[in-house]
Amino acid sequence: MKEEKLINIIKSIIGDKYIGDDYAYIKDLGIIVSQDSLVEDVHFSLEYTSPYQLGYKSAMVNISDISASGGKGKYMTVALSLPKDISESFVKEFYDGMSDALKKCGNIEVIGGDITGSDKIMISVTIIGTDEGRKISSRSNAKSGQVVVTSGVHGSSACGLKLLNSDKKYDKKYYDTFISAHLMPEAQVEFGKKIAENIKEDYAMMDTSDGLADALYKIAVSSGKTLTVDFDKVKYEKEMKNIFPETYADTVLFGGEDYQIIATVPKEIAENSGLDIIGAVEERTENEPVKILNFLGKTKIINNLEGCYNHF
Amino acid sequence: MKEEKLINIIKSIIGDKYIGDDYAYIKDLGIIVSQDSLVEDVHFSLEYTSPYQLGYKSAMVNISDISASGGKGKYMTVALSLPKDISESFVKEFYDGMSDALKKCGNIEVIGGDITGSDKIMISVTIIGTDEGRKISSRSNAKSGQVVVTSGVHGSSACGLKLLNSDKKYDKKYYDTFISAHLMPEAQVEFGKKIAENIKEDYAMMDTSDGLADALYKIAVSSGKTLTVDFDKVKYEKEMKNIFPETYADTVLFGGEDYQIIATVPKEIAENSGLDIIGAVEERTENEPVKILNFLGKTKIINNLEGCYNHF
Repeated sequence: MKEEKLINIIKSIIGDKYIGDDYAYIKDLGIIVSQDSLVEDVHFSLEYTSPYQLGYKSAMVNISDISASGGKGKYMTVALSLPKDISESFVKEFYDGMSDALKKCGNIEVIGGDITGSDKIMISVTIIGTDEGRKISSRSNAKSGQVVVTSGVHGSSACGLKLLNSDKKYDKKYYDTFISAHLMPEAQVEFGKKIAENIKEDYAMMDTSDGLADALYKIAVSSGKTLTVDFDKVKYEKEMKNIFPETYADTVLFGGEDYQIIATVPKEIAENSGLDIIGAVEERTENEPVKILNFLGKTKIINNLEGCYNHF
Repeated sequence: MKEEKLINIIKSIIGDKYIGDDYAYIKDLGIIVSQDSLVEDVHFSLEYTSPYQLGYKSAMVNISDISASGGKGKYMTVALSLPKDISESFVKEFYDGMSDALKKCGNIEVIGGDITGSDKIMISVTIIGTDEGRKISSRSNAKSGQVVVTSGVHGSSACGLKLLNSDKKYDKKYYDTFISAHLMPEAQVEFGKKIAENIKEDYAMMDTSDGLADALYKIAVSSGKTLTVDFDKVKYEKEMKNIFPETYADTVLFGGEDYQIIATVPKEIAENSGLDIIGAVEERTENEPVKILNFLGKTKIINNLEGCYNHF
């Protein structure tokens, strides 16, 4: 069964007041909450991930959600399910990695969680952030006339994963750029903060955990707008063209787990903050939620999630 | 590796400011946070649990932690990891059960979570409660002179689990009393509230998710006191004596998952609120954290967690 269908069933029972974004904003408490799980052999494999990297990434993917809300990560709970024969050093290294990620992102504190047995490793992290008086985003808040901005480069994580599944993983030169992008992504804390601290109007923001196309599509559909993006303006590591000449462009657009941020903001905010503008928000006139201009010489229309990254 | 050892490793890395109770109290935000996971074939088996019961219990075990803090459950996030071939009706019934538990306990709202794939079912729930101006408990806060009080009856859940693993499960008369105690426990929301609203001094409170002995021991050790409990005053279903004459007393003391509440409070609070007093808190003079009087005609000393319930 598809994740979307499951979510519709859930909405029909518990309502959809809070379902929609990757986080819930509880305005009267001033907090933002998000929970994400990583499952062995679904989201990671111990064949190529070290316990340190796993702890680091588990923290970063959750911090990414809070950063994309515009809030500030403050507290984290961590539920670990581990095989009985797991080593002491696994747990130590996992928490070392997590701890380093938390320090890097403003000294977020681990305040609890639990440990249970299981066959495979499961990590479920909940992060609590505070709004700090900033304006919190929602993916349904894109407005016509806003520009589309994004942090960093796209496709590197998926390229790293492809390399890990190929013989090319042994080539040292790819490690820092691509493989570490996959194994140790960095949450875009400063990017989210810069926007949320300065913006006055409603805006959309989300991370690219499921890819650039996925984020653009979800913002466009939730907001009822068309997002037009110029692929020539989307940044990616040019080396990808040499490694995977056939598929690099698809990887940039559809590859998941970069944990970059996409936002729709007024042009002045983008220009004053020096953000990369890759497109614009327009009223929807056709069934064309996302238009990618100059994609391999053509305009690509994205009007469903086929081809998008799916963790389920 | 034992859960305790793992927790010590974790403490050495992230500190122990918040580690100790089953929940974390973030005083400046006025919130209490707890996270608990249920793993298929570790915490439950689909052989005897329905999806509805599983959803109900997943909510209740987390509500129980907030109730034992003295706070009020308000919001919940739910991470589900499900096999790809899971049916639509499983998800629907799971959420129906969860939804009914949440309504029963003060209309707690599900505000988010995620769904991922996995081989076995994993449920990780985070609950956020508010302190509502009440005094929040800690297991390290038992004071000499306080009495030990508890809600409900003990051992029924473990007795139910034993019945489920025996041929006696087909005997209808056991179902409502024991098997439903195991499959659909009730969080002691009113018990926790009654104490937290009325108490002025520091006090210990926790639930018996891992059993009565476990809770008494953890409060005693964390507080550096001796808890003396009269087994004759501990309530349990007398029918247990007939079903399991050899082991009933151990089941009352050590059986897990009753989700009753144990607290140490001033005698007046106990008496004014009509709570069941089962013992008293005393200064520790010997290495006897917990003394159970009249346990099968003897005094039983509990000075370690051997025999206590362990989910790991």
